[in-house]
Order: sequence, then structure tokens, then C-alpha cells
Amino acid sequence: MTETGRDYAQITYSVAERIATISLDRPHARNGYTVTMADELADALGRADHDADVRVVVLTGNGRDFCVGADLSQGDFDFDTETGPDAAWREPAGRVSRRMFASNKPVIAALNGAAVGAGITIALAADYRLAATDSRFGFVFTRRGIYPEGASAWFLPRLVGMGRALDWMISGRVFGADEALRSGLVHGVHEPEQLLSAAYDLAAELVTTTAAVSVAVTRQLLYRMSGMDSPGPLHDLDSRLVASIPHSPDAVEGVLSFLQKRPPDFHGRVPEDLPGFLPWTREDTT
Amino acid sequence: MTETGRDYAQITYSVAERIATISLDRPHARNGYTVTMADELADALGRADHDADVRVVVLTGNGRDFCVGADLSQGDFDFDTETGPDAAWREPAGRVSRRMFASNKPVIAALNGAAVGAGITIALAADYRLAATDSRFGFVFTRRGIYPEGASAWFLPRLVGMGRALDWMISGRVFGADEALRSGLVHGVHEPEQLLSAAYDLAAELVTTTAAVSVAVTRQLLYRMSGMDSPGPLHDLDSRLVASIPHSPDAVEGVLSFLQKRPPDFHGRVPEDLPGFLPWTREDTT
Amino acid sequence: MTETGRDYAQITYSVAERIATISLDRPHARNGYTVTMADELADALGRADHDADVRVVVLTGNGRDFCVGADLSQGDFDFDTETGPDAAWREPAGRVSRRMFASNKPVIAALNGAAVGAGITIALAADYRLAATDSRFGFVFTRRGIYPEGASAWFLPRLVGMGRALDWMISGRVFGADEALRSGLVHGVHEPEQLLSAAYDLAAELVTTTAAVSVAVTRQLLYRMSGMDSPGPLHDLDSRLVASIPHSPDAVEGVLSFLQKRPPDFHGRVPEDLPGFLPWTREDTT
Repeated sequence: MTETGRDYAQITYSVAERIATISLDRPHARNGYTVTMADELADALGRADHDADVRVVVLTGNGRDFCVGADLSQGDFDFDTETGPDAAWREPAGRVSRRMFASNKPVIAALNGAAVGAGITIALAADYRLAATDSRFGFVFTRRGIYPEGASAWFLPRLVGMGRALDWMISGRVFGADEALRSGLVHGVHEPEQLLSAAYDLAAELVTTTAAVSVAVTRQLLYRMSGMDSPGPLHDLDSRLVASIPHSPDAVEGVLSFLQKRPPDFHGRVPEDLPGFLPWTREDTT
Repeated sequence: MTETGRDYAQITYSVAERIATISLDRPHARNGYTVTMADELADALGRADHDADVRVVVLTGNGRDFCVGADLSQGDFDFDTETGPDAAWREPAGRVSRRMFASNKPVIAALNGAAVGAGITIALAADYRLAATDSRFGFVFTRRGIYPEGASAWFLPRLVGMGRALDWMISGRVFGADEALRSGLVHGVHEPEQLLSAAYDLAAELVTTTAAVSVAVTRQLLYRMSGMDSPGPLHDLDSRLVASIPHSPDAVEGVLSFLQKRPPDFHGRVPEDLPGFLPWTREDTT
Repeated sequence: MTETGRDYAQITYSVAERIATISLDRPHARNGYTVTMADELADALGRADHDADVRVVVLTGNGRDFCVGADLSQGDFDFDTETGPDAAWREPAGRVSRRMFASNKPVIAALNGAAVGAGITIALAADYRLAATDSRFGFVFTRRGIYPEGASAWFLPRLVGMGRALDWMISGRVFGADEALRSGLVHGVHEPEQLLSAAYDLAAELVTTTAAVSVAVTRQLLYRMSGMDSPGPLHDLDSRLVASIPHSPDAVEGVLSFLQKRPPDFHGRVPEDLPGFLPWTREDTT
């Protein structure tokens, strides 16, 4: 680890080999989710996003569990003591999932142990979710008399289809890694002691084989343009992107390295080298 | 059964243990779909929806089959004799699927035997579809020279993806329970004699473990907000919902029962106790 | 083959038994994708679409591979020499996928060997994708420093869900037929020497068992109406379509043949006999 970052109270942040690691760090409370943790996570995601030396983010939890959901150790939900639940208040899981949605760096979530409630909703906006064989998931809101948060009702049907999303979110039942894999909620299942190294292997592969600008644009094309009524608007944008290729050093290197049958050596940096004409604004990136 | 309901001609309706059972009841015609049946189904769904003592609806068919599709016993499709197929006419399968879409109570469809044509399109808006090992499904419209109805082209891709939806709807082929399960069309497959009890087991679990208001809101969050261009509008609504938690007896009970490791005892009623600020109107709920 | 068509330079076109076959025909270059090929494919798709004697299109590649992606034999991407990459330029993969999207005839893509880059993006708009056991797929754009084209970021999440789409498009990794089948990218996997006959068997089944007008309308209902916020607008359109049934010779024949337990004999022709009130315009069908 080459950097140990700001002094966060409830998470840790470090960067090594162009991979930022963000870890929930309340292991004594099984990483119970708090407003402070939410704001620190959003801050750390923004930090990785703006640091061109960071290519990929690994998100995980210190201790046995990723996150058991909202911290109830005070016998109630944790709300912002300053601002209170007024009209402009933004619920804490969505502060993180929206920041991840807007990210230009891919996020790999390594979901050790329990990922329940906010512990799974904040991970739905990650590009990859990896589970351990003993991982447990649950959208348990209906069983607590509350509601799914983190804009999870937007993300979940996109990942697993509406039928499975209705089942999980209406029943609130807890399920294991096998069902999560079969349904497409997670991309892979690993032995618990190998989960984190699997996440780093994947992160390292992305760092060495892909172009940062291509990855950032691709991620946003999927999220921002796939909801359109027809493929037309995306084709218009694709045309501008493809037309920019002759002026892109990464594209030149990509073709050359391919023809020369050698690994590519991309130098494009994010966010500095992103095309200037992309239509999505930065309103979500705080 | 504690209530036997209005005098419907082509369906039956009863309520027991907070579960409403709606059964297609033309077993001599394999529950061939008619305009009368459509209007009775929509009426019965609305009745369950407005009765706060009902928590869950089980939809099934009396006799061997759920529904073989439009009744052709008169040698032609059944149309409304009064209104006729004028511009304002609403085709009968969609009268039911739209009413189900707007429902605040989850619907479990137990699809015994054949669920073909309108027999499957009216069930696409259910929250759960359970099949028997001998169930048969088919979107057979192209093989009859007609069109998929019941807004099924809206529901089906959300459930099984566009590739499978195109295959089933273009070919019109009939397929079995295994393919339905593998594709996500149904949530489970049971022995024929155990199908209905599986549906009631699931219904009873929802009744005893979940909060009615939470379920109603969750169902609508998934249907109404997942089509948005971005997660932002849903996060705004999530924030209002989460901010309302301190004032919700169900949420207090949910947290307390969880901390006390006992089953919850929720008292919130639907529709009476739904939050007043939900943006979807009741235009669909006739 | 009863017709050998216009003189295309880089594809072949033929029609037999109401099935049009369009084949990429640069086997010496493993069907490397060019602007000429794109424009010929769009032209051939339009030709099949406007020829009422054609019911189904089979799209495949001559030689060992379907298409290895953009032709790099000149050491660079092929751009239009006349028009150049100006603002109104339309990138070549999207010229084909959008034409296919607008088609009134179903397309069966037989993806022999490699289907990589543009070789898979142009096939995402097909109704069916069939693979061979040795097929290889890859959305390799991030590994070349470029971007996914062909409006593929619109089509892919609809086919395989957002989680798999992010994985494939961010990593750019190459994968085989098994993963493609499991994820829903392809509808079936066949021995290489049987791939094309499987495509023709499916095409022949569509020709003999389905009504042309029903298929055309169904395909467009799925693509044009499933993106709506609610099922209401589709139900309105379904109502007009179902109300038109009494005046449809195909519907009469569909019901009669079903009741008489004999194969149907549909005569409706596309595009001539399409209902006149369908709301989608022809802006995409050049």
C-alpha cells in the first residue's frame, strides 16, 4: 500500500498498484451502516474517481461481514443529527449508490459474510459483485416495516430481472451465494479466504489490459443510454465517439499492440482525457 | 374459508386467513377466457386491493388447467356485445394485467396445467408465478394470426430478457415448466397435487413475516420507478420514505422485534396507511 | 436458391423458400468489418424487409468465422473516405443494427467461429443468435482503446442484464459458447457443421407455422413499447390490434385451423398488410 489517505473514522482508504481499496471499518458492529459511514464512502469514491492514478476501486468490509445493514446498536436508525429528516434530506444508502453510479472508475465489491439491507443496496451500483461461499444476502426491508433504499428498486431489476427482484424485495428473505450467482446478482463465488485475492486479480487484469478512458465511457454508455426508447440516440453518440478515434492515442496503441500481438500500453487518464462532448453532466458527482 | 363473496358467474372469490383466493371457474371449458371473466377478475382484484383484511391474493384455475386462452367455443373470439370493438374499447387481458400492476397487494399465480395465450399474459403482472411439473406455457399469438395482448410485450422482457421474449413471442411455441423456470418466467415448480399448497405456504409466509405497507410501497417502487433514466428520482422518493420511518409504528415494531429476536407484529393497513406523498396516481385502479 | 440478387462486393444475398440468406463474404479476411460491408448489409436487410416473399432472414458468415470485427488489414480502422468522420457521420455497426431493429422480418444470426467487436454488436439486434460449440465472442473495445459501437450498450443489457453487460463490456474479455448460452446471449449451441442447418430449420418453422403480419407487429411491440413507463400505452395499442381481428383473414384462418386441428395457411403479406395505425414511424428504415 503506497498511500493511507485521509483520516476516515468508519472506513479505510488506501491505494496500491492503481487499485484503491475502500473498506467498511466497524468490524465490532459487523460494519453496521451509519450516516458517517455513508458520507465517508461517498467521499472516498469521489476521491478515487478524481485521482487519475486510480484505475479500479475494490470495496469490501473489514472483519467477518461486509455489512449487516443499518446500525441499530443505539436501538434505532441512525439519522443525521444536524440536518434531520427534512424535505431535502438524502437517505444514506443512496448517497453511496448514486456516487458509484456516476463514477468513471469501475468498482469491484467483495461481499464477505453478510450483505444485508443497506449492506447489499450500496453494492448494487458496483460493476462487479463477488461473493464468498458463506455469503448471505437479504433485502429485508419488508420484514422490518421499512422500505428498500439506495435507489435499489432502480438497480435490482436491471441486474436480475423483475421477477426475482419482486420475490427478494417483497419477501425480504435471506438467501445464499448459490442463488445470488444463479440469478446474476453476483459475478462469481469464491472460498472466503480467497475472496479478496479474487477481487484483486480481477482489478489487476482490468488495470493491465484495458484503457481507462474506454472503460469510463463504456460504463456510462451502459448506464446512461440503455434506458432510451430506441437505439437511435446511442448510435448518434457512438458515431461521435468512433469519429474521435483517429485523434486518440489510446486507440492507436490499441490497434498497434493488437497487430503486433503484444500487451497494450495505454496512457489515457481519467477524468482528464475523457471526451468533452459526453452529454451526461456531473450533477451526481459531488 | 370465511367469506364466499359476490356472485360471480365465471370465477370464485373467497378470503381466509388474510389470503384472498381468486379462481377461474369454467373448468368444463378449461377456463377459456371471456370478457365476462376478464371483468370479474378485474373486479375481484380491486375488491382484494381495497379490503385491508386481505394481505395476499392467490390466483389459480379450477379444474385441470389454469387457462387455455381465449374461449373459442363459439367458433370465434368473444367480444363485448354491448360496446363492440370501438376506439375506446379495452382488450380483456389487459383489463386484468393492468389492474394487477396497480395492486397494492402481492399476487401469487398458481399456474396449473395449461397457461396459454391470455392464460399466461394475465399472469405476467403477478408478483409470483408457480408452475406444476406438467404445466405448459405458450405465447401462441403468431400461430393464430393475432397479437400478444394484456400488455404482455411490456411485462415479458422485464421478466425473462428481450432474447427469450422475442423467441417465445415470435415463434409462438409451447414450452414446459423446466424452460419456464430456467428462464425466470416462474419462481418455482411443484408436483401438481402440491402446487396450491405451495402457493398458500408462500402467501402465509408473506402474511406473517412482512409489513403490509412496506410490501405495497416496495411493489410499486419496483414497477413505477425502475423505468426512470437514472436512479436520482427514486433516491428522492426513498429519502422521503426513510425520513418517514420515525413516525411509522410498523418501523418501530420492525426494529424492536428484530432486536428482541421475536416475530414482528405489524398492524399497518393497506390502503389506509399508505404514505400520502407517493407520486403514482390511482388512474389504473378502477 | 431461386435468386442471386444484386452485385454486392462484400456480402452475398439469396432467397429460397421464403428465407433470405445474407452472408458476410470476406472469408480471406475472416469477414473483417468495413464501411462497404456495413452499407451492403443495411441495403440487403432493407431489401428483404420490403420483399413480401421473404419471411425470415438468416445472417451468417462465409468461411470459418462470422466476423472478427473491424477490418484492420490496412493497419487502421476503415472510415468513409468520402464523407469522413464529421458530425453527421453514422458509425458503421449501428447502420446495420438500427436497420435490423426497424425490420419487420425476424433475423436469425448463425454465429460461426469468431463473433468479436463489430462481429457481435451487429448481431445483437437479431431476433435469434445461434452459436457453434467452437464460437468465440468478445466486446473487446476497452482492450483496443476504443468504444462499443452499433448501439450495443442499448441492446446488450436488454439481452443479458446489466451485470453481465458491465462485465463483458468493461473487461473486454473473450468468452465461449457455453457462457453465451448460460447468459442468454445466444438461444442455442450446435455442432459447427450443423449450425447453418439449425438456423434454416428454425427459419422454416417460422415460415410454416406463423403469420407474417403477426410476427412483424409482435417484434415491434416488444422493441417499441416495452420501454414505456407503464403498461398503459401498450394496452391502448393492444386494444386497437385486438379490435382489428374480426377484419383479419389471418386471424380467421388462425382460429379455424386451430379448431380444425390442421396447419394454418396464412396469406397476409409484409409490409403490405401491416395495420395502418401502428405508431412507430419508418424513420429508421432506409
